[in-house]
Amino acid sequence: MRIYDLIQKKKTGQELTTEEIKFVVSGFTCGDIPDYQMSALLMAICLKGMTKRETADLTLAMAYSGDVTDLSRIPGIKVDKHSTGGVGDKTTLIISPIVASLGVPIAKMSGRGLGHTGGTVDKLESIPGLKTAFSAEDFVDTVIKHGICVAGQSGNLAPADKKMYALRDVTATIDSIPLIAASIMSKKIAAGADCILLDVKTGSGAFMKTLDDSIALAKAMVEIGEAVGRQTIALITDMEIPLGNNIGNSLEIIEAVNTLNGKGPKDLYDVCVELAAVMLELGGISGDHKNLAARAVASGKALESLCVMVKAQGGDESYIRDTGKFSKAAYCMELEAGADGYISRLDAEGCGIASVMLGGGREKAGETVDFAAGIVFAKKAGDYVRAGETVATMYSNVKEKMHDASERLRSCFEYSETAPVSKPLIYAKVSKSGVEMYSR
Amino acid sequence: MRIYDLIQKKKTGQELTTEEIKFVVSGFTCGDIPDYQMSALLMAICLKGMTKRETADLTLAMAYSGDVTDLSRIPGIKVDKHSTGGVGDKTTLIISPIVASLGVPIAKMSGRGLGHTGGTVDKLESIPGLKTAFSAEDFVDTVIKHGICVAGQSGNLAPADKKMYALRDVTATIDSIPLIAASIMSKKIAAGADCILLDVKTGSGAFMKTLDDSIALAKAMVEIGEAVGRQTIALITDMEIPLGNNIGNSLEIIEAVNTLNGKGPKDLYDVCVELAAVMLELGGISGDHKNLAARAVASGKALESLCVMVKAQGGDESYIRDTGKFSKAAYCMELEAGADGYISRLDAEGCGIASVMLGGGREKAGETVDFAAGIVFAKKAGDYVRAGETVATMYSNVKEKMHDASERLRSCFEYSETAPVSKPLIYAKVSKSGVEMYSR
Repeated sequence: MRIYDLIQKKKTGQELTTEEIKFVVSGFTCGDIPDYQMSALLMAICLKGMTKRETADLTLAMAYSGDVTDLSRIPGIKVDKHSTGGVGDKTTLIISPIVASLGVPIAKMSGRGLGHTGGTVDKLESIPGLKTAFSAEDFVDTVIKHGICVAGQSGNLAPADKKMYALRDVTATIDSIPLIAASIMSKKIAAGADCILLDVKTGSGAFMKTLDDSIALAKAMVEIGEAVGRQTIALITDMEIPLGNNIGNSLEIIEAVNTLNGKGPKDLYDVCVELAAVMLELGGISGDHKNLAARAVASGKALESLCVMVKAQGGDESYIRDTGKFSKAAYCMELEAGADGYISRLDAEGCGIASVMLGGGREKAGETVDFAAGIVFAKKAGDYVRAGETVATMYSNVKEKMHDASERLRSCFEYSETAPVSKPLIYAKVSKSGVEMYSR
Repeated sequence: MRIYDLIQKKKTGQELTTEEIKFVVSGFTCGDIPDYQMSALLMAICLKGMTKRETADLTLAMAYSGDVTDLSRIPGIKVDKHSTGGVGDKTTLIISPIVASLGVPIAKMSGRGLGHTGGTVDKLESIPGLKTAFSAEDFVDTVIKHGICVAGQSGNLAPADKKMYALRDVTATIDSIPLIAASIMSKKIAAGADCILLDVKTGSGAFMKTLDDSIALAKAMVEIGEAVGRQTIALITDMEIPLGNNIGNSLEIIEAVNTLNGKGPKDLYDVCVELAAVMLELGGISGDHKNLAARAVASGKALESLCVMVKAQGGDESYIRDTGKFSKAAYCMELEAGADGYISRLDAEGCGIASVMLGGGREKAGETVDFAAGIVFAKKAGDYVRAGETVATMYSNVKEKMHDASERLRSCFEYSETAPVSKPLIYAKVSKSGVEMYSR
């Protein structure tokens, strides 16, 4: 088998066999196939596509290129959850304890933030003492003992994907639905859960800017999951504006705790109930899933589950009991509305970038983050404001960062005389049964 | 300007600007743009194409990436000729002296053979003493003094093309008409002639296997030539079977001399008269060009011109006067017809490969060639033969090479009971006026 022939085959729109895809993935991962041949193949895939079978084969080959977590010692149906990345997206911190409190074991691996989107591992590490680095054995033991563990990804999780993503990132071969779907699903499959909930964000702050693309990606991922025997359901959720009111690591922990206390913003609460309901469905729990999720919050059981998790991971649970203990940023600055009127647009991506500029995220892998930095919105899209009224407060430990970040944040707001049409929080549910569009 | 953005632009089918193409070519040539980004861009070009303007810009950027020969000291219209490569294609050795003998200065740069096709420089070097390495100044001086010089390409001729071709060769990005056209024309433009005759071969032994592809390539090259102010005409000629009867370096010199003596095979003579006529047309000679070319052969003037050229390049012209002086191969072997019947097919590519196996060519750049090795056909497609009759004689200085080569050559012959339909030698003429199809 020669890589040249496989590039030629894909260039002419032919389907690669399972053996050919395995050859590509293993050859590229071990370095036998050089970058310049792989990038030509990736471009051909971008432009000629892959069939469902090829995409599933690629996913499996990447999933098995490194460590595969064995969760079989954990009793019950293990459900994992993945978000395609958003701004202010702290849903994992809310729905994991909701679902765990209802008896579904949560063995979840999360990533760090990069670019304008945050990462659950960073947010969790803002809780003093909390660790996210677990050996495979300790990870499984923790879930068996406590019913929940949210860990960082193992360093050797799907190394083929890591190497391929790095090459795609510099060769303009990112935006291919089969390649994106295979990349995400390879890590989820390697992480070992039986079922997977996908939260596919759509809108300006999301990787997928249009609903059509988001649904296409969701379908591709559901098809992969079902093809490899992992029940997979996706919800398409809005990321036109940030989710909830807080962006930033400890700020998002605080908002997650507020939500579990029944005092969170309505958009965040509603999305979390929907997502948790699907996880309960996947976890084989019977009953009215949304009602079960809502009751887990109302009864305080879900918050207890979060405390159990934080403690099990070595974190100081007193910060959850009293979020006032989180250290505040040294500097804060209010952003005032630029005009009288309705906020007609609040660009999620720009808000995420402003938060990174404040120190709350990283532009390059490996940078440190300022846990206290970020933004708290007082007003969001659809709200009526008067010029000069506070619409958001920015936090940072570096005073010099305020000015540029405030300019960036200011540019995210647009105003209009009439109320904007409100957008749905959830657009659709994608499962093996098909696409179910949600009514407004 | 970022190469990432240019890859993305081409991937989405957009046109690159002149400045962007210059940036790509200079960046890749100097090593600023790594192979893995260039191969992604090349694949995007293969699949999305290039406009005429982009192709002309690419050609010029590659032409000016290294030495550009200045022929302005040579009086008159300088005409160059390029063949896309064939088997038994010794036309340069015949038409250059024909045209030079009629007053058109020939300042031609040729290449070496590679793969199944031969190269003029190798063939010329089979003449004892003849040199093809000239400084730019000596090259021009030779043409001024003698009216003709066929030299090897300068080492620094279109280095961007050399580097790009090497990458295309391993990333399955060869078969793109804009890229092939730009590659050929960049070298011709750097070689400095005013006008260019292109001999675009078509058929099994050619790079372009179909007439449609050959015409498309010819049109693309003519468009480039005209876009950059070099009058360019292409003839589409047959390469389904080898041209003439001889394949191999000194064997082709001998056949060229025979043709200039009026004793060559008819197919070769006819094609040379057509090609020479176009060169005369490009060179601004008035009159009946085909008749002029035929008379130059019949009068012996063309052969004299070849002798002048060989002597001017340091070669022993007595070998031209008496081709019996060329040293014979130590071994020869006859191939017999496998069946009674008409030769219905004589695969040109396979014949070229058999000649390489005999030592007459090289599979890798840098290998030495056996000047005396090759094949002389006694019968060709369309001829009626009896089983056991000699159809070809193979020559080599290495006895062990005979067996495998004879098997390869045998597989090139196919026989049928009925006479095959004869194919035209010349299919079409492509110029700025359009495509003129030749009738049979």
